[in-house]
Amino acid sequence: MPDSYEMPTWGWGDSAHSRDLSDAVRARLQTQLGVGKEVELVAREEADFNVQDSLLDERLLQGLSELVGEENIRSDKMFRVLRSAGKSYPDMISLRGGEPGDVPDAVVQPADQASLREVLSYCSEHAIAVTPFGGGTSVVGGLATVREGFSGAISVDLTNLSGLTSLDAESGLATFAGGTRGPAAEQLLSDHQLTIGHFPQSFEYGTVGGFVATRSAGQSSTGYGRIDKNVIGLTAATPTGPVRFAPMPGTAAGPDLRQLLTGSEGSMGIIDTVTLQVKKTPDVLLDRAWMAPDFATGRAALRELEKAGCAPDVARLSDESETEVSLLLAGDSTPVKALRGYLGLRGRNSGCMMITCFEGSRLDSSQRHRESSDILRRHGVIALGGAPAQGWRKGRFAGPYMRDALMDAGLFVETLETAAPWSQLESVYSAVGDALRDALGSLGGEPLVMCHVSHLYQTGASLYFTFIGRQPGASVAEKIQVWHGVKSAACDAIIQSGGTISHHHAVGRDHAPWLESEIGEAGIRLLRAAKAELDPGGIMNPGRLVLTGS
Amino acid sequence: MPDSYEMPTWGWGDSAHSRDLSDAVRARLQTQLGVGKEVELVAREEADFNVQDSLLDERLLQGLSELVGEENIRSDKMFRVLRSAGKSYPDMISLRGGEPGDVPDAVVQPADQASLREVLSYCSEHAIAVTPFGGGTSVVGGLATVREGFSGAISVDLTNLSGLTSLDAESGLATFAGGTRGPAAEQLLSDHQLTIGHFPQSFEYGTVGGFVATRSAGQSSTGYGRIDKNVIGLTAATPTGPVRFAPMPGTAAGPDLRQLLTGSEGSMGIIDTVTLQVKKTPDVLLDRAWMAPDFATGRAALRELEKAGCAPDVARLSDESETEVSLLLAGDSTPVKALRGYLGLRGRNSGCMMITCFEGSRLDSSQRHRESSDILRRHGVIALGGAPAQGWRKGRFAGPYMRDALMDAGLFVETLETAAPWSQLESVYSAVGDALRDALGSLGGEPLVMCHVSHLYQTGASLYFTFIGRQPGASVAEKIQVWHGVKSAACDAIIQSGGTISHHHAVGRDHAPWLESEIGEAGIRLLRAAKAELDPGGIMNPGRLVLTGS
Repeated sequence: MPDSYEMPTWGWGDSAHSRDLSDAVRARLQTQLGVGKEVELVAREEADFNVQDSLLDERLLQGLSELVGEENIRSDKMFRVLRSAGKSYPDMISLRGGEPGDVPDAVVQPADQASLREVLSYCSEHAIAVTPFGGGTSVVGGLATVREGFSGAISVDLTNLSGLTSLDAESGLATFAGGTRGPAAEQLLSDHQLTIGHFPQSFEYGTVGGFVATRSAGQSSTGYGRIDKNVIGLTAATPTGPVRFAPMPGTAAGPDLRQLLTGSEGSMGIIDTVTLQVKKTPDVLLDRAWMAPDFATGRAALRELEKAGCAPDVARLSDESETEVSLLLAGDSTPVKALRGYLGLRGRNSGCMMITCFEGSRLDSSQRHRESSDILRRHGVIALGGAPAQGWRKGRFAGPYMRDALMDAGLFVETLETAAPWSQLESVYSAVGDALRDALGSLGGEPLVMCHVSHLYQTGASLYFTFIGRQPGASVAEKIQVWHGVKSAACDAIIQSGGTISHHHAVGRDHAPWLESEIGEAGIRLLRAAKAELDPGGIMNPGRLVLTGS
Repeated sequence: MPDSYEMPTWGWGDSAHSRDLSDAVRARLQTQLGVGKEVELVAREEADFNVQDSLLDERLLQGLSELVGEENIRSDKMFRVLRSAGKSYPDMISLRGGEPGDVPDAVVQPADQASLREVLSYCSEHAIAVTPFGGGTSVVGGLATVREGFSGAISVDLTNLSGLTSLDAESGLATFAGGTRGPAAEQLLSDHQLTIGHFPQSFEYGTVGGFVATRSAGQSSTGYGRIDKNVIGLTAATPTGPVRFAPMPGTAAGPDLRQLLTGSEGSMGIIDTVTLQVKKTPDVLLDRAWMAPDFATGRAALRELEKAGCAPDVARLSDESETEVSLLLAGDSTPVKALRGYLGLRGRNSGCMMITCFEGSRLDSSQRHRESSDILRRHGVIALGGAPAQGWRKGRFAGPYMRDALMDAGLFVETLETAAPWSQLESVYSAVGDALRDALGSLGGEPLVMCHVSHLYQTGASLYFTFIGRQPGASVAEKIQVWHGVKSAACDAIIQSGGTISHHHAVGRDHAPWLESEIGEAGIRLLRAAKAELDPGGIMNPGRLVLTGS
């Protein structure tokens, strides 16, 4: 659990856990991209930020203060800056440059559900835009302040709506307040030997309500299921009153409106309680690493695990490029040397690293592990033992710290993700990889484009791309323009090759231009109609999900 | 597969397969309810039906005929009667009495998707109400003709939209035209050793599009999942144009609008293609029967199977009353005598019959069977061998024929179903059972109220009630009023005790008054908003799902 939940403006997490690049990595970046020297951070102190004063009418600020209590409203500059952005690469570019753009006029932290509901009614009445803030981990522009057309813009921070509201252990149903952070939720359940089993990379900061609002998937979702498969009930505060869907194991009582609120990204209301299906804490964690001969063979093997019903709870497969970089990042330690030696003996100088984790009862985990081992071996996948997989588990939330270190070195570093049916994965992989290599290549040097599969389904899998290139822009605006070009090329390639615009990062502001290509004009109309019904004033997280309001 | 897809007006299925009541059953009904004499069927021939002439303006009928072709439009009286109702108890009361009420002015059978879309546009333009007709198996008033406020009412019969449109075997995705019947869909897949695994009692008549539109669950849904878990993509024709959601294994691209159309019951549009997740045809079917000491213990045992991850694909548990009647219905054959003898030896003169079926690979089925057997035995559940379970599988689509035979004997016979979290099952079971016993008891005699669990989930299970009592009404209207009283008492009890108003029969017209109690005022507003967006004229299956139009 992090020491503090307030992240620095310039990066991820708890600065006590910052990482640095090894000499080997620096040398490689220097050779390949001609970059690697430390870049000076422009904005550190309050005075470094170019921020407009709060524009909210004093009377409205007073009105909000009366609703939530003076102690639950803040309008100091740095806090407003901290609530103006998530943790995407362009967010970091803006904040590191001291140019946050629009920031909320005030940050409201309702003490309970009742005052949250009153705040939304009040804001609707007075045309104040509301951006919900849970964990602050959006990487798709989900938290950017939008004030055009409004009398003001506030951040509604759910930090006070935390805790386990009720537990029905017999049914395996746990109800949390929407602002409950991942670690707090797991801690509360661990007393009962229960777990949600939802561990996105943002787990340490993300909130239960945020997971649901963004339709999140976690690292163990192959086994435990995406958050949308685990939402059995929810309530949301909206400008037109509360929405409530009681927990039901299965129902034919019309369309599943839980799934309309799940993934609504704050654009219809704020999910203030969530009832999740929870499971018994696993008795064992059986973590193993493997090396597949190549990415296509590794994917085929994983597909077979799914079809055979013995898929692991965590399944990850890096492509050749990510495997090579992972080994570089792991350094020249004795275990890595030994691994290289072992692979050399088996005639493998390259390949694709795979991680499988089986969780659950001792019997079930070992049965699935045994059955899947047979299938993997038949595909020429070599067992590497437990250590590399345990290492992955240990560092699995640390990725964003590495992103900060790479940004410190002046690099363009970004990730994106998609999913597609098994039959289309190869073409999506090629199309997106080519688009990224083209776009980044035009910026100079030899870009790094890496990919892994991280979620398996009966009918397909996800693809997660990490890419590093030169960042030639000088100003914040130039850098963001460069980012935009690369991002657009990748998104176009995803849609054209038949992938989904997001597998687990959500739509936010950044993917909104591509949503219509995926769900059609009628899909967009349905989203607007639902928003207009719950939020007729269009105050809820404007500009997210769909391009324009209702 | 049935010989003909046209069912008789007075009952279920293919009249060649009609059943009769045994002397033992007749004697029991006579003792318990004082009923059992054959009742004369009023309406058999065309002349017996009181039906209004088609009210649709000749010009509009001509317009429709031009869109779909003369051969695809019918307006003969008996065909209109056949399209005016589903197969619920009140539907049968009306049709057996020759009083169908409103019937469609014409039955349109579009030859393809394109003309289906044109028909909906045309009807929207001319205010013609449209009721989609797939398998005609609704038991919740989903097919009743509603013409008030419209210039006419037609049935849109999807019989010509049938077939496997595409198969992506690598991904396990099969795309069907919406009007494909259950048996045809399975036949088309069996050539590829694949199955949907969806077997509701209506399987022989129901259509793939109808399963999705009504959010159906099948007898094997504990293993294969409800239809809503297996819909990976769909398209629908609506008055404002097509809706299309491409197959995606998992996505965070906003709310899951597939789940808004799934369960929309024709009220927003007509689902004309469905992409389903399909699985390998099972290598083995391991069917076993059991006797639990009592209903609560049986439920607790089933819950443990779910929690242990070894639940069967089919799991059914009858309460004491249903068990006793099942044995009576099975007759006095040698196997039943042997079974009674065996139970007597084990000191059981009563109990709750349970059926478990494990399907899949030999290894996986036998592992789950072994593991679950241990758990069942620990709960005092006695193994009865395979024969009774195989008997259940053989007759599993025959239930509705028995309903006809009971109606022939002049009985009130009806079913309803709900689901609830495990912790609430006992109170829902008691509340609904009490409500039914009270309501039916007031009609005289000693009513039969039976219940079984038929679908297991991690967080809860379904309850399916069958009830038989006296039907004291004389006229159609009186009989329906009696039915309405009993049905209302049960629905009130479901909602008050925390169940869902429908686990798999859907909402239709009959459950619509209780939907708001379940999904709230905001839920109803969301449904109306979605309907208004896709169907601004309110022509699509009016009166279904929500009580009034938009």
